[in-house]
Amino acid sequence: MLLSGLDRLLPAGRVLTDPDAVAAYAHDEAADAPYATPVAVVRPTTATEVAAVVEHCVAEGVPIVARGAGTGLSGGANAVPGGVIVSFEAMNQILAIDDGERLARVQPGVVNDDLRAACAAHGLWYPPDPSSSPWSTIGGNVATNAGGPCCVKYGVTRDYVLGMEVVTGAGDVVRLGRGTAKSSAGYDLAGLMVGSEGTLGLITEVTVRLRGARAPERTVVGCFDDLPGAGRAVAEVMASGVEPSALELVDRFCLRAVDDWKNMGLTAEGNVLLLARCDARGAVGDADAEVVLAAFDAAGATWSARSTDEAEADALFAARRLVYPALVRLGSVLTEDICVPRTVVTTVLARIEAIAAEHDVHIACLAHAGDGNLHPMVVVPPGDEGTRQRGAIAFERIVDLAVDVGGTVTGEHGVGLLKMRGLARELSPAVRAMHRAVKKAFDPAGILNPGKVFPVDE
Amino acid sequence: MLLSGLDRLLPAGRVLTDPDAVAAYAHDEAADAPYATPVAVVRPTTATEVAAVVEHCVAEGVPIVARGAGTGLSGGANAVPGGVIVSFEAMNQILAIDDGERLARVQPGVVNDDLRAACAAHGLWYPPDPSSSPWSTIGGNVATNAGGPCCVKYGVTRDYVLGMEVVTGAGDVVRLGRGTAKSSAGYDLAGLMVGSEGTLGLITEVTVRLRGARAPERTVVGCFDDLPGAGRAVAEVMASGVEPSALELVDRFCLRAVDDWKNMGLTAEGNVLLLARCDARGAVGDADAEVVLAAFDAAGATWSARSTDEAEADALFAARRLVYPALVRLGSVLTEDICVPRTVVTTVLARIEAIAAEHDVHIACLAHAGDGNLHPMVVVPPGDEGTRQRGAIAFERIVDLAVDVGGTVTGEHGVGLLKMRGLARELSPAVRAMHRAVKKAFDPAGILNPGKVFPVDE
Repeated sequence: MLLSGLDRLLPAGRVLTDPDAVAAYAHDEAADAPYATPVAVVRPTTATEVAAVVEHCVAEGVPIVARGAGTGLSGGANAVPGGVIVSFEAMNQILAIDDGERLARVQPGVVNDDLRAACAAHGLWYPPDPSSSPWSTIGGNVATNAGGPCCVKYGVTRDYVLGMEVVTGAGDVVRLGRGTAKSSAGYDLAGLMVGSEGTLGLITEVTVRLRGARAPERTVVGCFDDLPGAGRAVAEVMASGVEPSALELVDRFCLRAVDDWKNMGLTAEGNVLLLARCDARGAVGDADAEVVLAAFDAAGATWSARSTDEAEADALFAARRLVYPALVRLGSVLTEDICVPRTVVTTVLARIEAIAAEHDVHIACLAHAGDGNLHPMVVVPPGDEGTRQRGAIAFERIVDLAVDVGGTVTGEHGVGLLKMRGLARELSPAVRAMHRAVKKAFDPAGILNPGKVFPVDE
Repeated sequence: MLLSGLDRLLPAGRVLTDPDAVAAYAHDEAADAPYATPVAVVRPTTATEVAAVVEHCVAEGVPIVARGAGTGLSGGANAVPGGVIVSFEAMNQILAIDDGERLARVQPGVVNDDLRAACAAHGLWYPPDPSSSPWSTIGGNVATNAGGPCCVKYGVTRDYVLGMEVVTGAGDVVRLGRGTAKSSAGYDLAGLMVGSEGTLGLITEVTVRLRGARAPERTVVGCFDDLPGAGRAVAEVMASGVEPSALELVDRFCLRAVDDWKNMGLTAEGNVLLLARCDARGAVGDADAEVVLAAFDAAGATWSARSTDEAEADALFAARRLVYPALVRLGSVLTEDICVPRTVVTTVLARIEAIAAEHDVHIACLAHAGDGNLHPMVVVPPGDEGTRQRGAIAFERIVDLAVDVGGTVTGEHGVGLLKMRGLARELSPAVRAMHRAVKKAFDPAGILNPGKVFPVDE
């Protein structure tokens, strides 16, 4: 019934059921998150097709999981038992880039970097820059409220979503939000969809706000003996009044993994690398870079430099991007994504090191340090079941640590499956009840990404 | 039962029932919006007291209307029949200003300007700057998602709210949102409360994000013969890549009203005044001001100047702030607050003039022109019933015009009572149903500001 129904609703070739084909859609990049084999994968091309699929699945009582590029790190796109995957790969058109209004209207399957390139051709800029930007899609970015390095100055995906078209759990195609600069007209339901991880509706179109092309960035690099020194440097920069357009921290485990792979000599100068960028226009940006450099030195940098060479600067940021693939070479990577108050970043990094020691695991740490958004990564060598188990415990202890210091269990990756226990700790019972009430209001049949983010029954 | 119960829940003097006393709380500043006489006004000092009031009102089936300073322009704070007003005037403490995290924690009754002054003492800045800032409260600003002149560059209230404490319609005291720079943890329920106009919960504490103290602003002034010229100037500025920190338009009716009152000579140079500010730091800000000046001249300004005199610049912005009181001298003012795509501002202004002529009313127009947020104001002389009726029709035609051009019926004032018909036109039936579902989820008894924003039954 389900499959013949789907075949009837979508053109030929748009419904996959071959086991090998559907296996490729079974999970995202979250290590250790459970997943099922999808019963079918549908690849709609219009909102009308999406609505028809939702209506059919409601009638059949079949769960639906929305999927962008599958680059998520929390299991949010993992298939659920007996469920259908709705892949937005075929809805990948940039529908409009409006220079006068500075906005773009895109289908959810548009790749982040493709949108950025298209905007650049108009002298415009879509800021949110998750590390996954060469592959991840706007739909997935919106569903997880994705961030990235530039968000320390320019905000996250939520700050750029003006409106959207959504297929609700009732199969209605609705337009939420707006196309204007401001609005106080009713509830911010578009904002509610941002970060809802496919549990409230399927996003079939997004209108995003754009900025003018950014000014050239200056890059400042600092090496530090230890995390406290780097932490002091971050605090000094953020207190200086300078608004860096990136402020990234890379620890020695990350540096070593990249060195072991690419032999870049990153570990020669110190144990912790800070990468800052300043993009204020003109002489002010130059002065900002000097302020950052002075802050690095004042905090005890073993080496620091303002890169005047764009290629060198890009190489350093490239090294930062190489961290994750370098770690994946060593085993499966359980990626944390806590966000803590900025002023406790150093303390929290030290406590993460203690947790690693206590549980006898390696935890490499990347951080969007200016935001307090930390990515401790537990590396589990292939087949090492003991490390896997100890790593999973360390992972949960870091989640608890985030909540204990007044932080949040996920800064930009979403809850998915991996942070469900943590979210339940972060939110009070009454707030969890409000989540369930919203879920029930928008997805009365409970078919949208069930079992993710929070339990519908508690 | 109601009154004796309230007296039991709150300390002496915190429940007003005297007819003269409660009359002062019966309505906000919206002309022509209906209101009732409150049965009682309660002035709680703690969230616990607010929760006790809500529980009691749920039990008694008595509606509650939250009220800040009563400066609203849509009737959102107007008393409803048989209802209680919860005035937050006594919850007016700034609880914390955290320099390291750049955030403030405040009670809802804190006056906007008081928060700004307190932040300034820390070298910090809370940007949202509604014209009502000397009187309006943060709670009211959050409830309406208030804007202001600087929002063209810095965003609206929503962009500064990180978290809040709310008493739900079930009487639960909950903390929503966060204290960190980023979060993807669950639904953005704090964001959902922003702009919900007291229909989903009573806000008892707000955590707002702050910025570093702003750099000095340069002011550029341009006078234009007509609205199309001013409209071209706005379009040129917004297309230039410069981000003005204000871009305000004042039409001839406004200028004349201020001149008639204060004899400032504003109408001598032209029919439309544009006021722009640029606050980029250093020489870039100076260059930006020159770009704006050139844009004004290119668009045909009859007179333009970059003010080098801070006092003169302040006087011009003061003139803009005098418009509303100057109009109120002439009669009751029905204030519009539509927001339209920036590129159609000129067309829309011309159509508003046509509507005024057609309905034989004076419509003065202020605009946050860079945002497309227009405030046409219908002035009704005292006792002129014919003008009042024609003005009310013109008001609704402007609302329809906003929807017709792809805009929104309220940019920053909220829906309240005056924009309910417009909102129903702006939102599709399915989106209205989603609003009702959210309302029902958070306020199952339907006692929070009933009859406002949208009808609960349709």
